[in-house]
Amino acid sequence: MTLEQKLAQLVGFWEKGDGEVVAPLQGEFTRDGGLDEATRHGLGHLTRVYGTRPVDPAERAAWLWRKQRELVASSGIPALVHEECLTGLSAWRAATFPTPLAWGASFDPALVGRMAGLIGGSMRELGVHQGLAPVLDVVRDPRWGRVEECIAEDPYLIGEIGTSYVRGLQDAGVHATLKHFVGYSASQAGRNFAPVHVGPRELADVLLLPFEMAVRDGGVRSVMHAYTEIDGVPVASDPTILTDLLRDRWGFDGVVVADYFGVAFLDLLHKVADGLGDAAGQALAAGIDVELPTGDAYLEPLAEAIRTGQVDEALVDRAATRALLQKAELGLLDASFDDEPPTHVDLDTPEHREVAARLAEESVVLLANDGVLPLAGGTGAGSAAGTVRRVAVVGPNADRAEAMFGCYSFVNHVLEHHPEAERGIEVPTVLEALRDELPGVEVTAARGCAVDDDDRSGIAEAATLAAAADVAVVVVGDQAGLFGRGTVGEGCDRDDLELPGVQRDLVEAVLATGTPVVLVVVSGRPYAIDSVLGRAAAAVQAFFPGEEGGRALAGVLTGRVNPSGRLPVSLPRSAGAQPYSYLNPALGGDGDVTNLRSTPVRPFGFGLSYTTFAYGALDAVDDEVATDGRIRVAVRVTNTGERDGDEVVQLYAHDPVASVTRPVAQLVGFRRVRVAAGQSAVVRFDVPTTRVAFSGRDMVRAVEPGALQLWVGTSAERCAQAEVRLVGPLHPVLDDDRWTVTEVCPG
Amino acid sequence: MTLEQKLAQLVGFWEKGDGEVVAPLQGEFTRDGGLDEATRHGLGHLTRVYGTRPVDPAERAAWLWRKQRELVASSGIPALVHEECLTGLSAWRAATFPTPLAWGASFDPALVGRMAGLIGGSMRELGVHQGLAPVLDVVRDPRWGRVEECIAEDPYLIGEIGTSYVRGLQDAGVHATLKHFVGYSASQAGRNFAPVHVGPRELADVLLLPFEMAVRDGGVRSVMHAYTEIDGVPVASDPTILTDLLRDRWGFDGVVVADYFGVAFLDLLHKVADGLGDAAGQALAAGIDVELPTGDAYLEPLAEAIRTGQVDEALVDRAATRALLQKAELGLLDASFDDEPPTHVDLDTPEHREVAARLAEESVVLLANDGVLPLAGGTGAGSAAGTVRRVAVVGPNADRAEAMFGCYSFVNHVLEHHPEAERGIEVPTVLEALRDELPGVEVTAARGCAVDDDDRSGIAEAATLAAAADVAVVVVGDQAGLFGRGTVGEGCDRDDLELPGVQRDLVEAVLATGTPVVLVVVSGRPYAIDSVLGRAAAAVQAFFPGEEGGRALAGVLTGRVNPSGRLPVSLPRSAGAQPYSYLNPALGGDGDVTNLRSTPVRPFGFGLSYTTFAYGALDAVDDEVATDGRIRVAVRVTNTGERDGDEVVQLYAHDPVASVTRPVAQLVGFRRVRVAAGQSAVVRFDVPTTRVAFSGRDMVRAVEPGALQLWVGTSAERCAQAEVRLVGPLHPVLDDDRWTVTEVCPG
Repeated sequence: MTLEQKLAQLVGFWEKGDGEVVAPLQGEFTRDGGLDEATRHGLGHLTRVYGTRPVDPAERAAWLWRKQRELVASSGIPALVHEECLTGLSAWRAATFPTPLAWGASFDPALVGRMAGLIGGSMRELGVHQGLAPVLDVVRDPRWGRVEECIAEDPYLIGEIGTSYVRGLQDAGVHATLKHFVGYSASQAGRNFAPVHVGPRELADVLLLPFEMAVRDGGVRSVMHAYTEIDGVPVASDPTILTDLLRDRWGFDGVVVADYFGVAFLDLLHKVADGLGDAAGQALAAGIDVELPTGDAYLEPLAEAIRTGQVDEALVDRAATRALLQKAELGLLDASFDDEPPTHVDLDTPEHREVAARLAEESVVLLANDGVLPLAGGTGAGSAAGTVRRVAVVGPNADRAEAMFGCYSFVNHVLEHHPEAERGIEVPTVLEALRDELPGVEVTAARGCAVDDDDRSGIAEAATLAAAADVAVVVVGDQAGLFGRGTVGEGCDRDDLELPGVQRDLVEAVLATGTPVVLVVVSGRPYAIDSVLGRAAAAVQAFFPGEEGGRALAGVLTGRVNPSGRLPVSLPRSAGAQPYSYLNPALGGDGDVTNLRSTPVRPFGFGLSYTTFAYGALDAVDDEVATDGRIRVAVRVTNTGERDGDEVVQLYAHDPVASVTRPVAQLVGFRRVRVAAGQSAVVRFDVPTTRVAFSGRDMVRAVEPGALQLWVGTSAERCAQAEVRLVGPLHPVLDDDRWTVTEVCPG
Repeated sequence: MTLEQKLAQLVGFWEKGDGEVVAPLQGEFTRDGGLDEATRHGLGHLTRVYGTRPVDPAERAAWLWRKQRELVASSGIPALVHEECLTGLSAWRAATFPTPLAWGASFDPALVGRMAGLIGGSMRELGVHQGLAPVLDVVRDPRWGRVEECIAEDPYLIGEIGTSYVRGLQDAGVHATLKHFVGYSASQAGRNFAPVHVGPRELADVLLLPFEMAVRDGGVRSVMHAYTEIDGVPVASDPTILTDLLRDRWGFDGVVVADYFGVAFLDLLHKVADGLGDAAGQALAAGIDVELPTGDAYLEPLAEAIRTGQVDEALVDRAATRALLQKAELGLLDASFDDEPPTHVDLDTPEHREVAARLAEESVVLLANDGVLPLAGGTGAGSAAGTVRRVAVVGPNADRAEAMFGCYSFVNHVLEHHPEAERGIEVPTVLEALRDELPGVEVTAARGCAVDDDDRSGIAEAATLAAAADVAVVVVGDQAGLFGRGTVGEGCDRDDLELPGVQRDLVEAVLATGTPVVLVVVSGRPYAIDSVLGRAAAAVQAFFPGEEGGRALAGVLTGRVNPSGRLPVSLPRSAGAQPYSYLNPALGGDGDVTNLRSTPVRPFGFGLSYTTFAYGALDAVDDEVATDGRIRVAVRVTNTGERDGDEVVQLYAHDPVASVTRPVAQLVGFRRVRVAAGQSAVVRFDVPTTRVAFSGRDMVRAVEPGALQLWVGTSAERCAQAEVRLVGPLHPVLDDDRWTVTEVCPG
């Protein structure tokens, strides 16, 4: 192959329509020229074929098959087609599932894997080969706008759910892409792209873990670099991360793709490269094989740098080999596209809807309840069943379909720019779904205020409706968007963690009526709602719950669904207390040495149910466990209430004396288990000791001997506890230790 | 020496009176027993002889001489006496100078050195051998309560001022103590003691620099460890910092002392030690020679650990040798204390007052001025001179002497617990001083509100006075205290950066009167005052300005003093924008990739004057400078106004392309220069290139070849600029490079 032909395999081409602004700074360096001109030497990736404009997927597939045939004819090699797919394939009329924080809240990796399988099936059908998901960034600061794209603040929970997503997508024949590798979520003050201040131990033991799990256990085929710098070194130019660690230590043999424009950013934003050719050389040397979304640096600037000897062409060969091996693996090198493109495409089948509904239902977190919930069908003493005649449903997210989705959903990402287009999928709002589920109840409604402006003119009407009702459901939260066009999402960071706009005023006005308030937060990040939480009769947190989210929320409110979601992120005390993680050592929490409280209003893992669960003793099978052994514990969970329900049994550990400071609580296992009213179940955990390994003084990750406290409950509450002693020598974690999987046996 | 005799040399003894709470958790492990019992094997340090209770210094000296004679008689070796001395010797009736942030604002290392000389003289006179100052922590987050003990957010500014302090104190014969080594100020969310998330590059290039300067250039004799952990490793147990770096690389050969209770905290708070004996062993091995304030871990627990073989006695010998060498150096091994203790002690002489006044005057920062200032004697067009007949002086810090001092001042640290004691030094308040300086003006006064409660009952009276006045001076800010007993100070962190209590309401009420408002902030941290800054006629920032601070502020307000202080810390936009440093690379500031603004309301280095200065061109002597050479530039500064004044000429640099991300601005030189009205001065900077060295990818600190932008102005404003090219090979900074000193030649 000529240099030009090799370089062509290392870049994408993004055929964009007019008017869409989809990434920062793109105007500065997107090149002119059509697809034919751009692909005369071949093409690596076709960028966002389905996710850029609202076009009929079948029509677009026909276009794609034609283009691929042309590429085969002209260069011999079709393009790899990649697409966003975080909460569903980013395509018109495609199912849109709950946002990753909701996956975390479900504590249900298997269901997330099933969702990913459905997404992968749709992609495969449409000729898409690679999906730009999942996001495995560990939540470190809720001010960051992209928190809604993340799964949780616990790296193991992320790793298990993320790995399940990878398997689901890849089992359907579509390559998954881990992003953003690595550090992005720990940016200074939660500012997008801001410097990341972490040391190597935090990087290894917290931020890298989910990626390691998805690479080693999940066998992921692609990884996307993170825009950020860590301690002064932009990841895009760091071979120690993208090559030494990822490939040499973890054994990754797939393709590393650039986050959009990230190669050029070495020159334009980070200022560590002297022009685009230098940026290309550094990124290539670090280990970024393919530049996306287009070839700003890897085409002419890189070619020139090679001609002048500034960059070694062997680096191009290395990347091109990887890119072509990936195409071979996907069957693309033999593909002729002589088959017919799909003509009848259903991207939102009943199975999609069922999985979307179940995941949404499992992800809703009940934060508080004085008995006002459920609104119907309750059997508990405090239930409002039978007494609720009139419900006022107010708030900016009560009757808005867009409130159900994250920033990379097709609805909020693409349709926002095409007001003329239909939504393409059915999305009942909370209000619509509640009306459906409360047929005998008078439901009144008013918006009250917008998500994010300062117009208070509608608050009085909402309060009036609330005053006249038996219960007021106040649905507040976020509108996801990009780069300042939303209250959460990429480039939509927050300076405080109050509810956006005047929503706090709306809540206060409704509370002032004296009518019991059910606060429903539909958001992409946790907000500091402590001030109203204590006065609300009940409170529910949903992280963008997807196309079935309205019905899921209505189901929880009415009692059709017994809530079982658990907080995947701490409910913060304030913006001023950030960053905060439940994984902090003792001195990261409250204590005598500071006047302030940092501990969250509701801890990681928290969530109520309409039934109650009692725990028996936590039995450790062995008092002493070898440092290279497995910790086996069992606990009986009894549903002591009057409703069937799911309990998420969470097993935590704490190492009371270690060579470095250790978290006060660390999730080491979890199991969602369904227990009928009055029944009980024994949940057994079989935890490899490597789960409590950490990087010691010498930066070798190992299991240290000594006492280990264990409990079931949440990060903050210990329902039943035990202690084991790890014995034997220090056990360094081996590269083939499958320390990442906890075997859990219900029974 | 027996083991017990050696251990005795490694600990302090703190004879405390009743009722004083001076450090966290002390009650948990301070031992019983009197001084005689505690010192039967000798004694390393006598802790805070003068700074614990309000006792007559001469009387206390008599006690001390007697105790020392007893120690000489019983053990042959007197104790080393250490005392706090951050803003003056912590003793009753001793001069109390401005707080370190004010030193930073003065940009006047020589004057700080003179102050330290006076402090050292007083200490020497009273038999104190070691002072627990200066604090060289680099400000990273204004939420942290101990920001008021720090000098600035620029490590070089800290290093130059701190080194000057060290020289001043040590030239007087008293050993200085650098603290807190290292990382303390970068704690998570600005919480005291919270984990520090930094990588090795940030540690080396930012946090360590001032310490390195004070060790290598200042020849400091003692260093105190920092309580915190860095990336999981508590500094108290980290030999790589306390020994490998400090001693082996930097050549430090003095004594490392523990921050109070910090050895025991390895067990009690950090949980990396299994009991106090283990804590002692780890601290000793890391390089902490002397445990303070008492011997909680280094006496019985350590002795037991040595007896059981857990700790090697050679570590005790190493520490004891260092401790005894320090005593030898101080002449203590030959001291008999047969001389008479001082009987007539004046710790607040006219020279003390003069230096206190000058430093206070140089530290006041004029943030805004529409011409209302100065109140008297103004000659500018906008001056209010001659028109001001009535001034209302309101606000909680207008008439409070305590508002002038930091948390470790004797007034706020000790006298707080002794309301029966006189203050012991003359401290005119802002109100008193203003009345003195405005003899022909009617000055009315009301407190309005307290610093930190929610009582708004006095605000109306203050507003009434303001409404009837020509100008309202509103003096707000902090009360320093410890562990929740103040709004700033050790253990007094903030969740937001609004003015504490209801002071914002007071300011709003006075602004609403329409009377021109001069906002005066007397505080220990910068507050987010943007919301009122634009509506005030003028605004002045003083960081606890000390015993002459009231007069200095009055001098600035009336015009007797032309303000010349410059912000040593950025004036923050909000708590939600923290942490923030002006040293951020481009992506740490504002940009298209986040919707939020982070850049401060007033930048580092900002400060107005009653005159105006114009800059000529910034002339670089050489267009090309060898990477191991010196950058020589000169600039003419002309006083274009009608008053004499000091300008702080600040030279900044920016490396536009580097191997790692570099700050958008970095102070590389500064010079306070007095210029008479209508006159000009040429300021020449001779900057070693090592000043722009940084740790490259390989963590070797070096000067890289390439372009370097230079300008005079502030971190944000470029009054005159130039560019030089660094040429030649990469220049690694050598251990004997005196890169820490910028030669500056006025002329």
